[in-house]
Amino acid sequence: MEKYLLTGVTPFDSQVPVDLLLEDGIIAAKGLSLPESHNAITIDCQGLQLFPGFVDAHAHLDKTLLGREWYINDVPRTLAAMIENERHYRAQQQPDAQCQSERIARRGIAAGTSFIRTHVDIDNEIGLANLEGVLETRRKLARYVDIEIVAFPQSGILQNPGTEALLDQALAMGAELIGGLDPCSFDRDPRKHLDIIFELACRHNKKIDIHLHERGELGAFSLELILEYTRRYQKEHCVTLSHGFCLGMVEPSQQQYFAAQMAELGVSVATTAPSDIAVPPWECLDNAGVAICAGNDGVRDTWSPYGNGDMLQRAVTMGLRYRWRKDSEILRAAKTITEGGARVMGLENYGLDVGCRADLVLVPGRSMVESLVEMPKARKVFKHGVLIAENGECLF
Amino acid sequence: MEKYLLTGVTPFDSQVPVDLLLEDGIIAAKGLSLPESHNAITIDCQGLQLFPGFVDAHAHLDKTLLGREWYINDVPRTLAAMIENERHYRAQQQPDAQCQSERIARRGIAAGTSFIRTHVDIDNEIGLANLEGVLETRRKLARYVDIEIVAFPQSGILQNPGTEALLDQALAMGAELIGGLDPCSFDRDPRKHLDIIFELACRHNKKIDIHLHERGELGAFSLELILEYTRRYQKEHCVTLSHGFCLGMVEPSQQQYFAAQMAELGVSVATTAPSDIAVPPWECLDNAGVAICAGNDGVRDTWSPYGNGDMLQRAVTMGLRYRWRKDSEILRAAKTITEGGARVMGLENYGLDVGCRADLVLVPGRSMVESLVEMPKARKVFKHGVLIAENGECLF
Repeated sequence: MEKYLLTGVTPFDSQVPVDLLLEDGIIAAKGLSLPESHNAITIDCQGLQLFPGFVDAHAHLDKTLLGREWYINDVPRTLAAMIENERHYRAQQQPDAQCQSERIARRGIAAGTSFIRTHVDIDNEIGLANLEGVLETRRKLARYVDIEIVAFPQSGILQNPGTEALLDQALAMGAELIGGLDPCSFDRDPRKHLDIIFELACRHNKKIDIHLHERGELGAFSLELILEYTRRYQKEHCVTLSHGFCLGMVEPSQQQYFAAQMAELGVSVATTAPSDIAVPPWECLDNAGVAICAGNDGVRDTWSPYGNGDMLQRAVTMGLRYRWRKDSEILRAAKTITEGGARVMGLENYGLDVGCRADLVLVPGRSMVESLVEMPKARKVFKHGVLIAENGECLF
Repeated sequence: MEKYLLTGVTPFDSQVPVDLLLEDGIIAAKGLSLPESHNAITIDCQGLQLFPGFVDAHAHLDKTLLGREWYINDVPRTLAAMIENERHYRAQQQPDAQCQSERIARRGIAAGTSFIRTHVDIDNEIGLANLEGVLETRRKLARYVDIEIVAFPQSGILQNPGTEALLDQALAMGAELIGGLDPCSFDRDPRKHLDIIFELACRHNKKIDIHLHERGELGAFSLELILEYTRRYQKEHCVTLSHGFCLGMVEPSQQQYFAAQMAELGVSVATTAPSDIAVPPWECLDNAGVAICAGNDGVRDTWSPYGNGDMLQRAVTMGLRYRWRKDSEILRAAKTITEGGARVMGLENYGLDVGCRADLVLVPGRSMVESLVEMPKARKVFKHGVLIAENGECLF
């Protein structure tokens, strides 16, 4: 196995360059001036910022149309119409979920993404085909990226007869989480929706990640129910709330209340830092101890043409959205796409300490903030201590 | 002078590829299959989207710290503190406004910017030094970019004794516009502030561009005054409102009222499409006939580390902010950074028709939307019919 000595690299949360020795897939040594090591490939890393591998904690790998014929988006704005439109496109064009998920995963890997939590559509039309495709991509790319899968009822559970049984199968096939979608506004019966999700999660001993787009007081009501179910089913530290716009819409006192409850129950939050709607209050949640991660969501799909799979760009989007301008504030964005994601995904041995897995990204920049705002393509990506991508291209 | 035949290029607002002949600085011919031309350099433009040169209609070229030592931002959030901080940095570090404005202008040019309206700080400390620097950059880069200058009282007029006389001089020295800044919240006397601006504009026969950050009803009050002054001083089609967050905060009926008034008086709007505050209602203003342009604002300065001078990125920011997802909606963003800016700056012979100035950008992409969201560095930039930048680098 290859061995690397990285010299003069600056950890993203520090100003002091260090040397790192990567051996047997981990950070084997770290110090101010490590000796040249037998058989190690030495890389001069002066002027490079060092991050642990990025965590894209909210993705939809199966949906992207990257690499296919250009899709002219003409979809109305309502959620139901967008879901219906996607089902129609899928039926007509039959994109291959394995091929598509591999395309976007490779783009992410080249940009430094080392861990992905992806939601995979499951409904009574597509069945388990998308799941099979993403499972195959996961096998194929296992040396380069860790993928966690959410069995996601994009068309609802109660609205889409047969989905419950499919979700059951999906969890048996290897999905690590069960998803959910707007218990009130989409599935129209919040208790039945949550009954199914939490029962399945308990039966299979799986985690839960619920898409909650519901706004204001409606979203707050659903969130209250989710917290109630988390407690009742003893799913502490197993539930993630995705999007959670409502958290940014309710009164500050209610935000504080939710933050405290979520911290107590270990309910985490995933955001894409959208610029067109309210976002969960980062500082309030963080102060309470709630884990916050970020994700690229859909990239070039029937929902939206935006995005490129780059978590550094997502960090910049976060910084702008939360009006973080100080270097010390922008560090929060860098931590959200790294440590925050690792906390939400429950990753062990994650970070830049000796003994941590050598899943690393090196980005040019005189400071962490410059490496974010400049967003250079020229990066070096290590996985399991092996150099796997350089200058925006995968080496495999 | 060089002559170019561009074959098979797709105009950004069309789907049909055409050939263009560039000669004597203009688009000399346009057709489905132009004959090879004597002495013309033929460029195969298949797979390239054609835009007229981008218009960065709200810039602060004199402020950027690009290329200097990394600036660690630790500035509080209030406007007054940010202005004070910048003055302090300037006094201590004495950045050279000519050098700095050239650096950021070159980055913009390489990315396809052909026209810039820049605000230049004028106050009783910096005096006219920044203006002199930017005037020198304008002379130096005259073949590559058209720069319009706003004499901008960043520290206020009434708050900063001596600024009025300096603004007077600045207009005499060649600034095309006089700027303004939050007549109520910053200068504390809206009528006196506007008296000075409109008197100076009339005396020098110049245009006006006012920074209005004031929110909600306060901003709406200042805007009412600006409209009143525009009418009284007969400055129709000469006034731009920069930022204008308040337009996105007032009731829809008030938005309609302002849009109608602004259209009648030819008052235009410049936005940066910020994600952390309300934005002017694009559709409402456009429907009424108000010209809307976009700008990159400050890039890597003491205010904020974000940005890179790329107007395509600004278009994507707009698209996300306004939740434009359909190809037909995203066309609005492309038009804002081209035709909208041209309208606001009063550019003649701007566009892609025969006879228009050959100030052009060619961007890889199978469609206009792909060329935006992919944001490729590989572009070809023409100014006055000459190829001046390629692959993200200036050729001069």
